[in-house]
Amino acid sequence: MTDSVGVTTPQRLRFDAPLALSSGASIDQYELVYETYGRLNASRSNAVLVCHALNASHHVAGVSASDAKDIGWWDNMVGPGKPVDTDQFFVIGVNNLGSCFGSTGPMSPNPATGKPYGPDFPVVTVEDWVNAQARLADALGIERFAAVIGGSLGGMQALAWSTLFPDRLAHCVAIATAPRLSAQNIAFNEVARRAIVTDPDFHGGRFYDFDTLPARGLQVARMIGHITYLSDDTMAERFGRTLRRPAQDASPGNDYQFTFDVEFEIESYLRYQGEKFSRYFDANTYLLITRALDYFDPAREHGGDLAAALAPARCDFLLASFSTDWRFAPERSREIVAALLANRRRVTYAEIDAPHGHDAFLLDDSRYHALMRAYFDRIATGLAT
Amino acid sequence: MTDSVGVTTPQRLRFDAPLALSSGASIDQYELVYETYGRLNASRSNAVLVCHALNASHHVAGVSASDAKDIGWWDNMVGPGKPVDTDQFFVIGVNNLGSCFGSTGPMSPNPATGKPYGPDFPVVTVEDWVNAQARLADALGIERFAAVIGGSLGGMQALAWSTLFPDRLAHCVAIATAPRLSAQNIAFNEVARRAIVTDPDFHGGRFYDFDTLPARGLQVARMIGHITYLSDDTMAERFGRTLRRPAQDASPGNDYQFTFDVEFEIESYLRYQGEKFSRYFDANTYLLITRALDYFDPAREHGGDLAAALAPARCDFLLASFSTDWRFAPERSREIVAALLANRRRVTYAEIDAPHGHDAFLLDDSRYHALMRAYFDRIATGLAT
Repeated sequence: MTDSVGVTTPQRLRFDAPLALSSGASIDQYELVYETYGRLNASRSNAVLVCHALNASHHVAGVSASDAKDIGWWDNMVGPGKPVDTDQFFVIGVNNLGSCFGSTGPMSPNPATGKPYGPDFPVVTVEDWVNAQARLADALGIERFAAVIGGSLGGMQALAWSTLFPDRLAHCVAIATAPRLSAQNIAFNEVARRAIVTDPDFHGGRFYDFDTLPARGLQVARMIGHITYLSDDTMAERFGRTLRRPAQDASPGNDYQFTFDVEFEIESYLRYQGEKFSRYFDANTYLLITRALDYFDPAREHGGDLAAALAPARCDFLLASFSTDWRFAPERSREIVAALLANRRRVTYAEIDAPHGHDAFLLDDSRYHALMRAYFDRIATGLAT
Repeated sequence: MTDSVGVTTPQRLRFDAPLALSSGASIDQYELVYETYGRLNASRSNAVLVCHALNASHHVAGVSASDAKDIGWWDNMVGPGKPVDTDQFFVIGVNNLGSCFGSTGPMSPNPATGKPYGPDFPVVTVEDWVNAQARLADALGIERFAAVIGGSLGGMQALAWSTLFPDRLAHCVAIATAPRLSAQNIAFNEVARRAIVTDPDFHGGRFYDFDTLPARGLQVARMIGHITYLSDDTMAERFGRTLRRPAQDASPGNDYQFTFDVEFEIESYLRYQGEKFSRYFDANTYLLITRALDYFDPAREHGGDLAAALAPARCDFLLASFSTDWRFAPERSREIVAALLANRRRVTYAEIDAPHGHDAFLLDDSRYHALMRAYFDRIATGLAT
């Protein structure tokens, strides 16, 4: 693969200064796991930070050294010659605080008890993540990012960067995101959380002590997620009402099985995805990250005025949304665009006609990638060397 | 209440002739519970059959004799002087086979074992329900209905009546319905079923033997249902991002609690609805009825040609849909209208601009009720007396 960053190995940094959290609590010490691709230039001006969404990690691109099947979640976007070109940029992927892929989170030992934090891990917000990421940037000697970039929940982090550290990024790239969740978004998160916390194997979040995990709850949570990530059209095209098994019933015109088992392809797909997810994702992390999603609402402290909330931002912006994304619909990106324009910021906005719903931000859509490539080429041209 | 049918008492009929089911199985004996309102006229021409959807019953109108708080689920539609006027029509509400409100279903004793059927209750389809309803009509001496009417899954039954018994109804009134579920609809049903069957208290459907019930699974299933019944706009208007409790956190501008407990009003509402549902609805019935929804697809035996599937119909049709119903969107009703027009049937179709999503078919929307009133007035005018 000439366009891959190749084999990647995560790095780890320990932070011993307490981090004050939005909740009023603080976390005394923590570790962040990250990967980097490309080279930081002499003027340290070409760094790009990639923020991840709910279930992703620091492993943005390339092939994991420990697992040849573990390709980075945005490998189609980041690499040599790719839209975010690692021949031009020094790209950093970081696993957020509270996640379950190496950074300090609910599975990590609580220094106070020596046992996993579990439900005692403090509630973290998008702003808390950004503060932790800024410390990582300090440690890596990066004063100012060429761009901070993310999709969905990652886009919320990019937005928060623009207001919390206005002088520390030149460009904010926020894709398929929203200035806050709708009641319907929160409702889907709440159902997923209920499925997890009511699973008897959840044990109030202390399931590690019982050598089990709430697999059934996680499975249902993931199934709900999948339905909302995909567009109705994509589901219709990929699965339609196709039956999973050939007919065994001899009634004329009847090839249903009439059973409560898996009957339609879509059921089989969702169960498979749910089961896979339940084996690798931590339940407490799921609760934590969906809560961070729910809480994100920068306009709240400004009486709902998003332009006022975004007023501190100084960087340029690229926003993109996808026509069939009903979870973070184009209207939500337009709210952000309108607020930025009211602040006379430089904004590029693209509404991409793509069939794949919210998932589109992860996929290799030619119009989407052409947009990203053009924008990052422009950034590269303006870099101090 | 001068416009109420008043206090109602369900009636019960036993059927001893075996009913052949779509699955190839049959049910040897069964009972149906029903209510009637108004009087059958001398020519027996004024009967209206109301078919219920997922979680409703025979108790369509009035106040239950056994519970003064139990108002019929379509009481705003059916009664003296109401759109379906019981001064003009003899209205029948019937609880479907497999339901949990009195008709034979999974909670009923299986004659073969003397214990509840549970998971051994046969899979039933919309067509099976219609066949059972036709036998009830026979028993009540009704050869031909003035109208068969239903919303959502009830609308599917009304449609099935028009083709299975074309000479036995003058009008088919199908509201907020679809000719078949989409992959997304099936997916939501599947998640709800997974939540139920993976609940350890489900015991493979034999939970009655364990003196328990899968309350957690039912709760999650109902929460998913509620999100999909409501429109995003309605949820935004009713709940928005309103917090449930007053601020206790003194941080400036911060009135979040930062907790995993109920924080937003929408969460509180969904949990309440879910818990209420889990106390009165049978889990096996939930599985059974959502499967009937999944399987309904009259065009299937005709290579997907809905017009061919509806060709046997002879009655007139009223179809209505609601602009914000994303579960059974207006497009789905239009598919039915197009197929009926291709067959040169007389069709009235109204797409009603209402904010309440799929739930609108149960609500007292003035345009919707004016439509229903006008249509039923026209039916009444044409009745033989």
